[in-house]
Amino acid sequence: MPELRRDPVVGRWVIIAVERAKRPQDVAPIENAHTTAEGERNCPFCPGREDQTPPEIMAYRPAESPPNSPDWTVRVVPNKYPALQIEGELDARAEGIYDRMNGIGAHEVIIETPDHNATLATMPLQQLEAMLHAFVDRAADLEKDTRFKYIQIFKNVGEAAGASLEHPHCQLIATPVVPKRIAEELAGGLAHFGYKQRCIFCDTLRQEYDDGARLVFADDLIVSFVPYASRFPFEIQVMPRRHVSSFKNVAEEEVKHLANHIKLVMGKVDGVLRTPPYNLVLHTAPCGMDELEHYHWHIEIIPKLAKVAGFEWGTGFYINPTVPEQVAECLRTHRTD
Amino acid sequence: MPELRRDPVVGRWVIIAVERAKRPQDVAPIENAHTTAEGERNCPFCPGREDQTPPEIMAYRPAESPPNSPDWTVRVVPNKYPALQIEGELDARAEGIYDRMNGIGAHEVIIETPDHNATLATMPLQQLEAMLHAFVDRAADLEKDTRFKYIQIFKNVGEAAGASLEHPHCQLIATPVVPKRIAEELAGGLAHFGYKQRCIFCDTLRQEYDDGARLVFADDLIVSFVPYASRFPFEIQVMPRRHVSSFKNVAEEEVKHLANHIKLVMGKVDGVLRTPPYNLVLHTAPCGMDELEHYHWHIEIIPKLAKVAGFEWGTGFYINPTVPEQVAECLRTHRTD
Repeated sequence: MPELRRDPVVGRWVIIAVERAKRPQDVAPIENAHTTAEGERNCPFCPGREDQTPPEIMAYRPAESPPNSPDWTVRVVPNKYPALQIEGELDARAEGIYDRMNGIGAHEVIIETPDHNATLATMPLQQLEAMLHAFVDRAADLEKDTRFKYIQIFKNVGEAAGASLEHPHCQLIATPVVPKRIAEELAGGLAHFGYKQRCIFCDTLRQEYDDGARLVFADDLIVSFVPYASRFPFEIQVMPRRHVSSFKNVAEEEVKHLANHIKLVMGKVDGVLRTPPYNLVLHTAPCGMDELEHYHWHIEIIPKLAKVAGFEWGTGFYINPTVPEQVAECLRTHRTD
Repeated sequence: MPELRRDPVVGRWVIIAVERAKRPQDVAPIENAHTTAEGERNCPFCPGREDQTPPEIMAYRPAESPPNSPDWTVRVVPNKYPALQIEGELDARAEGIYDRMNGIGAHEVIIETPDHNATLATMPLQQLEAMLHAFVDRAADLEKDTRFKYIQIFKNVGEAAGASLEHPHCQLIATPVVPKRIAEELAGGLAHFGYKQRCIFCDTLRQEYDDGARLVFADDLIVSFVPYASRFPFEIQVMPRRHVSSFKNVAEEEVKHLANHIKLVMGKVDGVLRTPPYNLVLHTAPCGMDELEHYHWHIEIIPKLAKVAGFEWGTGFYINPTVPEQVAECLRTHRTD
């Protein structure tokens, strides 16, 4: 019998095809997201080609190394083709029954490593930690601009997941509105807090940790698990056990553990699915809402796999051909060493 | 300057890349959704192969023609690999903080025409009308089952849009819960009605009709337009001017006009984008809610085009590389004769 499961935060129901489910490892990716010699030859993010990007906003580099020289470990530059524009006023207004505002915001690229061929699974932990520090530094800086309501950090890997360049990088978009999905999570979290006086993400973590069936990996600071009402095969959430609403306030110890989780989890995903295209999205509290009792930062990883049906865009109704507990077991038991 | 636009019904903000926008006709589809000789050779939906589907639920055929014989114009069969199962009890219950129920529902296939190579743009109007009548007949029949809360009718064309068979067909899924997107539309519609005592869809229609900039085609019964806050290039809505919440209550004259709209609009889409893969989704009121003042049935058409970025799944934040007014103009001026 197929099963309907409800996401406790946003209230979305998902069909889990329990009976006719594929073995998780049989779900094939749309493509494999490998780097190529040609991609590397023309890569504007590789060291020595700093002049092919707009001048850097920030970089981690030795004290004596000048900006836009090759000697960096992480480098943040404006997106050459920004979706939003940094200068100007919002000028929010009605157009009849509609609402619009100017597309004010920031659109940055966080180049995670000088190594064109690295992946989150293969790069050194230290490099992953530097990437996470860059997230914090950029978010803290951009939050000072009161026009911005949300700092969206995400990573697209592989063309099928929306990436146009191979070199390991994340994107940051600062938006003058809170994205719908985050607003829904905030509303769901607030409703739960209103009933129970507890954070719904803390409740989820506790249940996942005690149950264990959907765990991928857990330590004393961070938990990685397959969501109960997963929309997609191999969807994974990574969440801190400590209640913190904004990623900006992540502790140094948590950064270290988080880097370890990301490396480990992506190693398993890449191993089982042979480096699929994927999206990684950081969910955090809106700007200036650092101390919410009802929100809890987390990371969502969504491999882009074949046969994701199309009608979901129109209806918000998902059919997942894999069983979350089986996916978790498959990932849990996959050795990456 | 890019522009942020808000969908008035569900409150979703969308970035419209006004400046760096592509010319609408330059947006390329992921693939072209043509039928193939091989697909036709092995097609279980073609006349004469009625034994390759489960026995038919309903068909439009001459009075003397027996069920499951070749002489039909529209044929409805159970999905051979149903996402939901028709027999059983819902057995809704909690799993700790989570909610689940059995996957009870119906999953049917509406074979629109005996002609393997027909499309919505090329089939005779009469055939389109028969397809729409089948929607009404199946919805009316399934609504009698009180376990079902929503009848979801949709069409996937092309592999990239989730189709696994070429032969023109729609799917129907009767669900024991209302899909999230529909629930959001109902909530948005209700909020608007609470403020203004008017249907938000009627308001939208009036503004689109008066403004004209986003119209694709309009007559005295139906309006086809590109939504103000389109998420995707060439997203199109088709809506009746008369306020009716449930498609089940569509008038015969409206069916005729709607068939004409679908044929014309899909002719333009296929012409401009060279038969792209697409999804067509019918949005209608939940079962047993025939007389809602705040909901209004409509059809959403979403071509599946290249470079739909991936992070939208995670955030609900869309970047549309085309300008809705330019898309509408491009479709409006494209001649299909």
